[in-house]
Amino acid sequence: MAHQTPIEYEQASPVVKAVYDDIMATRKTDWVNNFWKVLAHHPATLQRIWGNIKQVMGSGSLDPLTKELVYVAVSITNNCGYCIASHSAGARARGMTDEQFSELLAVIGLANETNRLAVGYGVPIDEAFLPR
Amino acid sequence: MAHQTPIEYEQASPVVKAVYDDIMATRKTDWVNNFWKVLAHHPATLQRIWGNIKQVMGSGSLDPLTKELVYVAVSITNNCGYCIASHSAGARARGMTDEQFSELLAVIGLANETNRLAVGYGVPIDEAFLPR
Amino acid sequence: MAHQTPIEYEQASPVVKAVYDDIMATRKTDWVNNFWKVLAHHPATLQRIWGNIKQVMGSGSLDPLTKELVYVAVSITNNCGYCIASHSAGARARGMTDEQFSELLAVIGLANETNRLAVGYGVPIDEAFLPR
Amino acid sequence: MAHQTPIEYEQASPVVKAVYDDIMATRKTDWVNNFWKVLAHHPATLQRIWGNIKQVMGSGSLDPLTKELVYVAVSITNNCGYCIASHSAGARARGMTDEQFSELLAVIGLANETNRLAVGYGVPIDEAFLPR
Amino acid sequence: MAHQTPIEYEQASPVVKAVYDDIMATRKTDWVNNFWKVLAHHPATLQRIWGNIKQVMGSGSLDPLTKELVYVAVSITNNCGYCIASHSAGARARGMTDEQFSELLAVIGLANETNRLAVGYGVPIDEAFLPR
Amino acid sequence: MAHQTPIEYEQASPVVKAVYDDIMATRKTDWVNNFWKVLAHHPATLQRIWGNIKQVMGSGSLDPLTKELVYVAVSITNNCGYCIASHSAGARARGMTDEQFSELLAVIGLANETNRLAVGYGVPIDEAFLPR
Repeated sequence: MAHQTPIEYEQASPVVKAVYDDIMATRKTDWVNNFWKVLAHHPATLQRIWGNIKQVMGSGSLDPLTKELVYVAVSITNNCGYCIASHSAGARARGMTDEQFSELLAVIGLANETNRLAVGYGVPIDEAFLPR
Repeated sequence: MAHQTPIEYEQASPVVKAVYDDIMATRKTDWVNNFWKVLAHHPATLQRIWGNIKQVMGSGSLDPLTKELVYVAVSITNNCGYCIASHSAGARARGMTDEQFSELLAVIGLANETNRLAVGYGVPIDEAFLPR
Repeated sequence: MAHQTPIEYEQASPVVKAVYDDIMATRKTDWVNNFWKVLAHHPATLQRIWGNIKQVMGSGSLDPLTKELVYVAVSITNNCGYCIASHSAGARARGMTDEQFSELLAVIGLANETNRLAVGYGVPIDEAFLPR
Repeated sequence: MAHQTPIEYEQASPVVKAVYDDIMATRKTDWVNNFWKVLAHHPATLQRIWGNIKQVMGSGSLDPLTKELVYVAVSITNNCGYCIASHSAGARARGMTDEQFSELLAVIGLANETNRLAVGYGVPIDEAFLPR
Repeated sequence: MAHQTPIEYEQASPVVKAVYDDIMATRKTDWVNNFWKVLAHHPATLQRIWGNIKQVMGSGSLDPLTKELVYVAVSITNNCGYCIASHSAGARARGMTDEQFSELLAVIGLANETNRLAVGYGVPIDEAFLPR
Repeated sequence: MAHQTPIEYEQASPVVKAVYDDIMATRKTDWVNNFWKVLAHHPATLQRIWGNIKQVMGSGSLDPLTKELVYVAVSITNNCGYCIASHSAGARARGMTDEQFSELLAVIGLANETNRLAVGYGVPIDEAFLPR
């Protein structure tokens, strides 16, 4: 899989460089992490995913830290090592403390446990939880 | 699976009633949802899981709404219908708006997409993300 | 998906009937559950999967009840409603009690929790656990 | 993630040492595996999870070896490398043979296959499997 | 969850109607399926996801039928009932036969089995499979 | 886990050698990948799984390349590193280009995203998608 070697800025095509520039400008940083440098092998995917991330992860009615915590929760449940590392770093950059990280993991762990109990026992959904 | 019929308060043993009472007192409500009424078939599990939930989901360095959002993220990723219904309700009870729910789902969806891209491409973890 | 209507014995082709007959003879029973009646839409799959089940689920160094418990554990973790129902029934037919079912679910739930904690914290594998 | 360095006994706080002591006494061993040494970064989680494991994994109506086999089944289905290693070791310590390990994997593999077939074909649940 | 009621064309805002119109024009059809009518509760998500689908699922170096088969494979592995139904229909609309559907399910099932065997046995990656 | 050391041809028993020979003859190649060499620790599993692979992955109404693409899609969704490596190689050997691999990953990623959106919003299945 030749795809997985990250493409550095200097080697990148103008289209890819433009995305890297936008990533750095948006994040007010001077580097780009490997996820983007690998997606760069397929510029259409690079542009599409970066466009999605900009739209979804920006500030809205949920703050950026909360969004990163949710990202970590999904990534741990899916067991994606790269994503756990990068979004844990993202959460820390937005202020997550060690204590918050541990509380986050406690919630993720317990949710995974009760998910299986609810499925295994076949718990019927309460009237009060049904859409009205 | 005879287990799945919820055990109502009136039918419950004293040990189970004590947990139901604690659930209602802790939540300042007068009802108990089916998850607990089904776990009641095995009182040791009922007590253990309720003890875990009380410890993990209470206020800490993460606020209760954030914890419910994380719970919903895990439950959707695991596809647990009961858990999505109950924890979405829990999040709404703690103030989640329709707009926040939709932003939450957007983050969950996108995280699931990029998790697979990172795994599929075998993206190497950046030095900056490694533990020091 | 026309596939999902179960094919009853009377409607079945000779090849399918032969598998149904072997299922009933092997299990010493006079009925066939829907899983096989749906696979019957593709006889090659029906024969192949039944051959696998006969080889894998028969008595060996693990007893049939233990194998059913493991099947339930996988099915709950994968959230397969049909499989939870059929293999819980299979486990009960081999002697599983209500207490055992609840202990099984407790193990399944807790394993799902600690799986996520180990992944989330990135616990390094102990020397003692490495293959020698 | 500073969390992931295991905390050794000598460096541990009295609260953490007490849990380590209880782990070693309960298991009649003189060492503690990394899972606990990493959870030690958050003593409340360490105490809570150890309490759960003691309650759930002890002898009951299912024997400890069966519980370990179920743990391995969940861990493989969730793809948790640490958990596969530690609970395979746990199962071997309780008597699992190489032949039993291979039969276990055969069941786990086949369950994962038929789970997808049942879901993909949308097999309707038989009357006989419904709760009464 | 008021979100889940589909929003019909007549009730839709101009922004949502424009997406519905583009879906129908692109697909050369006169109806819109519920997935889009539910996303319509959050127009930004509706526009974003439709834009992604148009870009990704259109004809490229993989033909549209192959893409639908892959979509079904992911949806079955994730156990998404809606997605299995809608993308199976999509595959049939692009020519998938009953025989192809059954072969598809056979591959999906077997892949799920061997995935767990490879993980459970910890098979080391062959030199020949490493990126060069 | 002594199981995971691959068993080389020279060390193999006659039963195992016969399977290796059939793998090489079927694939018109002179080597066997580690998956089979590890399964060789349990010859009954080796024979059974190879028999399944031969039946399922051979040419039928779906061509071998399409089957490999589906295998990769399942393996990425399940996060099986060995399987991603081996079946990506299998797909390349059957003609998959870099562009096709990237399009494949785009479909897999997006399917994982919309799967969670459909589940999270609880989208009702359209009449048109129900079996008739």
